Amino acid sequence: MPNLYVALTHYPVVDKRGDIINSALTNLDLHDIARAAKTYGIKSFYVVTRLVDQQSLVQKIISHWTSGSGAVYNPARRSALDLVKVKNTISEVAEDIEGIENIYPKTVATCARRYPASTGYKEFRDILEIGQPHLLIFGTAWGLAEPFISEADYILDPIMGPTDYNHLSVRCAAGIILDRLLGTR
Amino acid sequence: MPNLYVALTHYPVVDKRGDIINSALTNLDLHDIARAAKTYGIKSFYVVTRLVDQQSLVQKIISHWTSGSGAVYNPARRSALDLVKVKNTISEVAEDIEGIENIYPKTVATCARRYPASTGYKEFRDILEIGQPHLLIFGTAWGLAEPFISEADYILDPIMGPTDYNHLSVRCAAGIILDRLLGTR
Repeated sequence: MPNLYVALTHYPVVDKRGDIINSALTNLDLHDIARAAKTYGIKSFYVVTRLVDQQSLVQKIISHWTSGSGAVYNPARRSALDLVKVKNTISEVAEDIEGIENIYPKTVATCARRYPASTGYKEFRDILEIGQPHLLIFGTAWGLAEPFISEADYILDPIMGPTDYNHLSVRCAAGIILDRLLGTR
Repeated sequence: MPNLYVALTHYPVVDKRGDIINSALTNLDLHDIARAAKTYGIKSFYVVTRLVDQQSLVQKIISHWTSGSGAVYNPARRSALDLVKVKNTISEVAEDIEGIENIYPKTVATCARRYPASTGYKEFRDILEIGQPHLLIFGTAWGLAEPFISEADYILDPIMGPTDYNHLSVRCAAGIILDRLLGTR
């Protein structure tokens, strides 16, 4: 199993003008990315927001599916949402992983734009096989804020098809990236 | 560019007990799969439902983003949702494609379970490169109904990671399958 953690962050991300914002939670982000994380053997799926009311909302959604009537109605959904942890910041996520792994994880940013120093999927599959803990970070809204991307240990190549359109939803992008890194064919 | 069409169908699909139902539309299915379709050069994205009120709902959502205020707010979303067509049945979809291509498309079913005669992704990439029109079909709810899957010309392998969990959302599954077939690496 991969030594990989996933975070979906709502700060620092940018809006359509490029301004840094705290974005609002999208219910299906939690479900879809938790289900993909469970499929690909991810250790934990961190939902990151500094907003206390949004943290309460995440907890309310999760508890419905993990201990409420949803857990009885759909046990497969329960086992996916059991992976979710809520944190204030990416730094808190990394510290949580350090507490589990006894080593600070390498951070891996994702972005729809290509960076000169970005890492390809084949190359990063090989890095993951070494077994050190890595934290794969997805941004909501119009994506992760610029300084935050450059500070990551790795930046993954953008997901591209045979067109120049690069506006996937974060739900699809997360599924595709996990499949490129961990899918069995 | 691939000669590939995508359909998301709300009938015939099964519920959690395996009974055949007409499922209800999910707004983010339209957005996410349209965006993935645009990324991977899909010719049209058909949304299939026999329910007239649901067809009206699809049209209302699409028109907001293609000719309403959404088109001005987010032109990238417009160009994705421009791919959407609404049809009553998969047969109507295939006939629409026949009208465009002058040949009936081969149908390709997707399913989370493995079928003995299923086709792998590498093999199907090669088939697509020949250039004949194909229609890739995704089911909502608990997936496409059984007789419908067996009648398709091809059944694609299920998407698997390093676990036995096979409960991806249709949004993620569609993105991953399009990436396996048409992604550039």
